[in-house]
Amino acid sequence: MAKKVAILAVNPVNGFGLFRYLEAFFENGIAYKVFAVAETTAIKTNSGISLQTDDVVANLKGAESEFDALVFACGNAMPKFSENAGRPEYRDLLTVIKTFGDKGKLIIGHCVGGLLFDIAGIASGRRLALHPFVKDAVKTAIATDEACVVDGNFYTAQSEACLLLLIPEVLKVLKQ
Amino acid sequence: MAKKVAILAVNPVNGFGLFRYLEAFFENGIAYKVFAVAETTAIKTNSGISLQTDDVVANLKGAESEFDALVFACGNAMPKFSENAGRPEYRDLLTVIKTFGDKGKLIIGHCVGGLLFDIAGIASGRRLALHPFVKDAVKTAIATDEACVVDGNFYTAQSEACLLLLIPEVLKVLKQ
Repeated sequence: MAKKVAILAVNPVNGFGLFRYLEAFFENGIAYKVFAVAETTAIKTNSGISLQTDDVVANLKGAESEFDALVFACGNAMPKFSENAGRPEYRDLLTVIKTFGDKGKLIIGHCVGGLLFDIAGIASGRRLALHPFVKDAVKTAIATDEACVVDGNFYTAQSEACLLLLIPEVLKVLKQ
Repeated sequence: MAKKVAILAVNPVNGFGLFRYLEAFFENGIAYKVFAVAETTAIKTNSGISLQTDDVVANLKGAESEFDALVFACGNAMPKFSENAGRPEYRDLLTVIKTFGDKGKLIIGHCVGGLLFDIAGIASGRRLALHPFVKDAVKTAIATDEACVVDGNFYTAQSEACLLLLIPEVLKVLKQ
């Protein structure tokens, strides 16, 4: 039976990456809900377009059991992650990632996603694809130079461009 | 000198296609403005996300000279094009395409875009890539089975997935 996916969209989010997941899920009949990693559902793309998500990350906290998979959609919010890490939406982001990981649900993401999975402490010993700039910051996971890696319940890609390789793998497991 | 691009987004629009252009333009410092093919700037993606464009197509009419290139971003509005062709936004769409074409500006689009360029009467004798479903409807242009075609000022791709091939060509000419 098709699974239900929670998608985390940072602010600003890379629209190409976000909609690469969303349109693929839509076309394949996979249920999803988009949560802004922000205080409100009004966020922007890197390219400056305003969009409305379904909900905010604060409301995903405690509702993780409604979903089978978590997607992290990266964006230009991330280069400033370390200086904003204390903000409620970023604390919620890591809490939610940890809960999905602890429950053994599917963990999907590109670009800086792999580093967040490592920071949340859920990816120990797992091989991940992620942006080369953040590779050295990874502590307990195994940061690779690959474009796309599937390791257990972890589905990661190096960048938006590499979602081309990741999406077919993601669709396969979500349709099981 | 980099060129300025007008992007037409139908309602609903395929978000993957739309943002494949927008994020590439953003990352490459190419100026753009997004016009909804709708009565208001509030449109949706195929995948159900509400977004806000910069303006509507009615206001691009008469302002074509401000731009060097036109992009048509396709979406699920298009299967109903023939029954909605009389609506003001669709009449404006064809008028705007015709003006850009007549002025010899760059004409870029995927999926059903090629058919609209043909209907607008600007692509006579030009080789185009477009969705296989609409190939037989093309009258004076040359509908191909190719994933991506560049012919003169026409830059077309068969689908969102084929933008992977089209975007580098588009960036090359927009940066000239």
